[in-house]
Amino acid sequence: MGRLTYILVYILVHIPSVLWLRFLFISATIYLCEAFMSEKIVIKISGKIINPDKPDIIRRYAEVVRDIVCKGYRVVVVVGGGSYARGYIMCAKSIGLTQAQSDMLGIEISRVNSLLLAYTIGDNVYLPIPRNIEDVERAWSINKVVVVGGLQPGQSTATVAAIIAEVLGIKKMLYATDVEGIYDRDPKIYKDAKKLDMISVDELPKILNQGFEAGRYELLDPLAISIVKRSCIEVTVFNGLDPYNIYRALEGAIGTKIKPC
Amino acid sequence: MGRLTYILVYILVHIPSVLWLRFLFISATIYLCEAFMSEKIVIKISGKIINPDKPDIIRRYAEVVRDIVCKGYRVVVVVGGGSYARGYIMCAKSIGLTQAQSDMLGIEISRVNSLLLAYTIGDNVYLPIPRNIEDVERAWSINKVVVVGGLQPGQSTATVAAIIAEVLGIKKMLYATDVEGIYDRDPKIYKDAKKLDMISVDELPKILNQGFEAGRYELLDPLAISIVKRSCIEVTVFNGLDPYNIYRALEGAIGTKIKPC
Amino acid sequence: MGRLTYILVYILVHIPSVLWLRFLFISATIYLCEAFMSEKIVIKISGKIINPDKPDIIRRYAEVVRDIVCKGYRVVVVVGGGSYARGYIMCAKSIGLTQAQSDMLGIEISRVNSLLLAYTIGDNVYLPIPRNIEDVERAWSINKVVVVGGLQPGQSTATVAAIIAEVLGIKKMLYATDVEGIYDRDPKIYKDAKKLDMISVDELPKILNQGFEAGRYELLDPLAISIVKRSCIEVTVFNGLDPYNIYRALEGAIGTKIKPC
Amino acid sequence: MGRLTYILVYILVHIPSVLWLRFLFISATIYLCEAFMSEKIVIKISGKIINPDKPDIIRRYAEVVRDIVCKGYRVVVVVGGGSYARGYIMCAKSIGLTQAQSDMLGIEISRVNSLLLAYTIGDNVYLPIPRNIEDVERAWSINKVVVVGGLQPGQSTATVAAIIAEVLGIKKMLYATDVEGIYDRDPKIYKDAKKLDMISVDELPKILNQGFEAGRYELLDPLAISIVKRSCIEVTVFNGLDPYNIYRALEGAIGTKIKPC
Amino acid sequence: MGRLTYILVYILVHIPSVLWLRFLFISATIYLCEAFMSEKIVIKISGKIINPDKPDIIRRYAEVVRDIVCKGYRVVVVVGGGSYARGYIMCAKSIGLTQAQSDMLGIEISRVNSLLLAYTIGDNVYLPIPRNIEDVERAWSINKVVVVGGLQPGQSTATVAAIIAEVLGIKKMLYATDVEGIYDRDPKIYKDAKKLDMISVDELPKILNQGFEAGRYELLDPLAISIVKRSCIEVTVFNGLDPYNIYRALEGAIGTKIKPC
Amino acid sequence: MGRLTYILVYILVHIPSVLWLRFLFISATIYLCEAFMSEKIVIKISGKIINPDKPDIIRRYAEVVRDIVCKGYRVVVVVGGGSYARGYIMCAKSIGLTQAQSDMLGIEISRVNSLLLAYTIGDNVYLPIPRNIEDVERAWSINKVVVVGGLQPGQSTATVAAIIAEVLGIKKMLYATDVEGIYDRDPKIYKDAKKLDMISVDELPKILNQGFEAGRYELLDPLAISIVKRSCIEVTVFNGLDPYNIYRALEGAIGTKIKPC
Repeated sequence: MGRLTYILVYILVHIPSVLWLRFLFISATIYLCEAFMSEKIVIKISGKIINPDKPDIIRRYAEVVRDIVCKGYRVVVVVGGGSYARGYIMCAKSIGLTQAQSDMLGIEISRVNSLLLAYTIGDNVYLPIPRNIEDVERAWSINKVVVVGGLQPGQSTATVAAIIAEVLGIKKMLYATDVEGIYDRDPKIYKDAKKLDMISVDELPKILNQGFEAGRYELLDPLAISIVKRSCIEVTVFNGLDPYNIYRALEGAIGTKIKPC
Repeated sequence: MGRLTYILVYILVHIPSVLWLRFLFISATIYLCEAFMSEKIVIKISGKIINPDKPDIIRRYAEVVRDIVCKGYRVVVVVGGGSYARGYIMCAKSIGLTQAQSDMLGIEISRVNSLLLAYTIGDNVYLPIPRNIEDVERAWSINKVVVVGGLQPGQSTATVAAIIAEVLGIKKMLYATDVEGIYDRDPKIYKDAKKLDMISVDELPKILNQGFEAGRYELLDPLAISIVKRSCIEVTVFNGLDPYNIYRALEGAIGTKIKPC
Repeated sequence: MGRLTYILVYILVHIPSVLWLRFLFISATIYLCEAFMSEKIVIKISGKIINPDKPDIIRRYAEVVRDIVCKGYRVVVVVGGGSYARGYIMCAKSIGLTQAQSDMLGIEISRVNSLLLAYTIGDNVYLPIPRNIEDVERAWSINKVVVVGGLQPGQSTATVAAIIAEVLGIKKMLYATDVEGIYDRDPKIYKDAKKLDMISVDELPKILNQGFEAGRYELLDPLAISIVKRSCIEVTVFNGLDPYNIYRALEGAIGTKIKPC
Repeated sequence: MGRLTYILVYILVHIPSVLWLRFLFISATIYLCEAFMSEKIVIKISGKIINPDKPDIIRRYAEVVRDIVCKGYRVVVVVGGGSYARGYIMCAKSIGLTQAQSDMLGIEISRVNSLLLAYTIGDNVYLPIPRNIEDVERAWSINKVVVVGGLQPGQSTATVAAIIAEVLGIKKMLYATDVEGIYDRDPKIYKDAKKLDMISVDELPKILNQGFEAGRYELLDPLAISIVKRSCIEVTVFNGLDPYNIYRALEGAIGTKIKPC
Repeated sequence: MGRLTYILVYILVHIPSVLWLRFLFISATIYLCEAFMSEKIVIKISGKIINPDKPDIIRRYAEVVRDIVCKGYRVVVVVGGGSYARGYIMCAKSIGLTQAQSDMLGIEISRVNSLLLAYTIGDNVYLPIPRNIEDVERAWSINKVVVVGGLQPGQSTATVAAIIAEVLGIKKMLYATDVEGIYDRDPKIYKDAKKLDMISVDELPKILNQGFEAGRYELLDPLAISIVKRSCIEVTVFNGLDPYNIYRALEGAIGTKIKPC
Repeated sequence: MGRLTYILVYILVHIPSVLWLRFLFISATIYLCEAFMSEKIVIKISGKIINPDKPDIIRRYAEVVRDIVCKGYRVVVVVGGGSYARGYIMCAKSIGLTQAQSDMLGIEISRVNSLLLAYTIGDNVYLPIPRNIEDVERAWSINKVVVVGGLQPGQSTATVAAIIAEVLGIKKMLYATDVEGIYDRDPKIYKDAKKLDMISVDELPKILNQGFEAGRYELLDPLAISIVKRSCIEVTVFNGLDPYNIYRALEGAIGTKIKPC
């Protein structure tokens, strides 16, 4: 297939009678170069959103991803484990397995969720689901949508998303979760808590720590924060229960943007 | 390379001075969408046809596959083991290995046959030959011709073809064997046996069982039949000793079509 | 470590002053030879039994497997998918994925169940969970307990167990399910249905087909039956909800024995 | 080979004329059970110690590991990257690669160091060097010495050691570095700094942070500390420039012991 | 993405109103067919050139490779081990490892060098670095730049380049080293040594053997020479310390061309 | 299982009342140490001997290998391709594939032959058949019989055997072929040709080149000879058509011994 493309490009470039097309081609090349630098994104979707209890959401996410790819984005989707993962982790703990073994089980479920989403997206996706960072690199080098779950015990999927972004040189992360964004105070306690439109990564630990109960801290753990900061990855936290919010988050219209540098 | 394509597409789509091209593009997109749904095919070629004793047939099959791919089809080729496989299976049995171990040896030979065909097809093929269903998925996600042999003991290559079709969402299978199609009675016994042009999958077991001796039953074993039926995969059985028959089978001009649903 | 063993064996065998030990050793060798031929078993456990809702059963199964291994058995455990798998399969169908893709999701869950059991068994188990028949061979060649889930779409885990038994030359399968054995009539309908102690594999399809509703047929599908028959694998179907029943099934005290040849 | 061992064990256990041996055997079993619980250790060796500039140290470490294995320990060795890794990381940064890509290059060098040590240890080692956590599990399930380098970008080898310990259920880590242990103040600044014999994991961040310059913090990063704490892994930090210190550290005679819980 | 290309090609080919484009397309296809036969090249770069001490050269090589790919070449780059490899090999020898084990360590370093170059080239490269000939085939079938180091002990990277060229059907090899080409006599001894513009592969062993000291012989060892000869692969030896020499070598303007047949 | 062995060894070593056993144990350890150094062998069997036309020879080879392993040897068996390989290579050439692609097909057949032998040997063998040098290392580290075919195009299986010997530190190779050994002149031409009992590796190229026709040269190609020489691997060439000759070759009673250093 690559051959056909080449031939086509050759014609447009080498044959004088399409000179005007060639001119457009060259000027466009220069213009599009930077554009393409920002076309790579990581979408992190919580396991609370992608799981077998929500076929409709999965179907719509698949549509959105297909559409975004058509529009020229290269996409990595990182899917969390959700309630099914928690079931296995509970069981592992009651049996007495170690924390890391419980994590491994949760990671496996996040991979099954990923497979579910990947099959729904269809032919544009790299399969099978990558199981380690080298697999991710291989998948990425094939120019397909990459859908992954967890990679290693002791790591949140937010960290996975951050590491993958860094390895692949991606500068933009969409973080689909089940809240509207990051609030200045815990919205469950304080009625007057205000959603922030933007927050610096340096203020983040303070807000995540103080205003929220323990569980909330998982939004971005310290390792993810430090990677986001050192590699200047722009993160947008938004409500992913509506898949079409991805479009809005891409435009910066909703959620909270974390300024990394 | 993908970048070049994108750029090209971008020009055609985004730049007003090629507006007429853009219009064509959009209307074509919608029209081609369904067309592409049916462009995926599985070609199952018997090991009696693809084996090292027949370099000419292999060369011509390679040409046909290359050509079909140029015409826009996405192709999976499933190759059987043939007489070389039988040599190893015979030996395995006389040594006293289990049935499954004999199968494994036959599968390996079907993979060598696949490799032979794959090398002949050339740069358009995924290599190395996939060895299990996840490998097949990986190969398919790369947009190349996928050539496979057997996958697991206790499975005919017809079943392999059916399972792969189902996993990849392919709805059409060409089944190249050494007879003209399916007959209403065993043509070796009854001079007046008539080749059927079409047969329902439900009648298939009856005809395969009754009219033919044991060996013939392998054409489509019960597992393959049940997969073909439940996922509604259209199978065309035709004489593959002439590789160019693939074109005719694609058009439905020869062989027997099995109506799956 | 192997070196230490060798050295020990060498002393016992080669050094005259321990002649009496040597004599025991040789006579025992001959006696134990056949014993060891039958020491390999496949245990097929339904996903209804091994799943995260039943940590206690998993813990006890792990104990039993460890104990059986200590007693000299080499064990392959095949675990099914259970209700979690069904959750994913339901979701896949409501999204509109193919049957084979649904199967793949179910297989993944059976692997997570396997991992749960494997971690609970502990250091004696091969990890990671084998994903295809070559992985199973590799795992087996390492002399560890092999725990697997499904291998390929379109295959029940009973068939997986049968194929693995055949590839590894195992002649005995324990089939832990949630009924006491095979009945002559459907016990849910007929109060006077009688559990059979033994049944020939040739009568099996008749009984499974007639006496039971559709779902029951899954106990042993036609492919599993044909493998069991051709390779003469003795299957014992028994109630696995009590893990200690494995001991009783090993001795033939409970369940239904399927005479394969 | 396993067969020979079994036979031997069988004789000792089942045959009455060696009853006295059997008695010893059983009482020893119970006594040794706990002993074996603590026989699994992770040895983390800094890349400053294992690198191609120090063949003698590598040779002696190999001897010590072989000897420790003979004494009944099951060992995982985690090797760091050292100065060669730093060379590649420097280069990567001056080219402008991302932090994670630099890490990947450093990880590769830590794997080459691991291979160097593994070859020197000889036949007792699992090869090739595991490249991800599933590889580590596979290697471990084979009962060999496992030698690994890094696993993932954004992770110190101390964290790798902690995660591996947790996955494999290991409770003891020896941490060979180029200082005598953990001091109450930075010994490079304060002449009167005192090496601590024991420190609680909760006090650790305070001491590592305050008393030392930035670089020192790498000894145990926050992720490693949190894993060590939650799974109660006992860490002994000691001077590994003398390989025989491993014996002393095993006995608790040197270095600083970190009480994890 | 492939879908977009197809659609585009379809429009150009199937829709009458762009008939003139279609005509160009078809005539170009035939003309370009042969052209594409020669567009595949292997570039072998000595480890003396690509290593972490020379970030600038690596950066420029990456640019050149990206540019060459844009111009329509399909490229395999084979990178040597260089001085870092020699450090590990020295260490391995002083420890007393076998020659093959030393080679393995050197191969690992050549892979790290490859990774360094691959990351610098960026998104066009297949990752992870292939580790054996089947990996190379897989990487090649994906239409990306393939960067490899060594593959097997007892083999120079020149032989690796020759074998890969043969497996992938590549007929042209650029050999970037630190001399201007092949001289008729050793230029370090004879002031009047003359660089040869072309040399037959049959004369090569004589010249490499006689005129140069031992080390020089490595340029092309007997196995590489025999492969180059039997498959008629054209090799150009040139000074690669200036990356832009690749352009000149492609045009045959510099270095020594080895006529293979 | 390892646990049981340890316990046994512990009793024998640590408990005073079996002091005399302990004494034997320690003195035996020292004595056996060197013995074990030479217990590793590579057996290279020509594809003319191991192929599906000769089930009886395969069965007897399997027996011999099992027996040798029982006697304490650690064995790698390298199997050639034989006439089936030649069939595929002929076909590949008549199609016009490259030399390396033909080799790949031949290598695949040598792997099928290996699998045939491996299944016949049974439970002591590592499966699946290793496909590259890292696979061989993994297989070896598991303490099983390793059966391999070819590894890379452009390499005879004699070279494969030599490289594997070098990587694994094996010093002895048995070379089973279809002649009695190496003759001073070509025995097919000269009636008075004399089989040599021993020959220095330095004289080998002279004799192989002069006295024999081209085909004979394959016995040991230059690369194999150079590896054998540099790592001092003792090779015994003998008639392998009688499998029991392995015993005689082990004792040096038949064939020609090549003195490597």
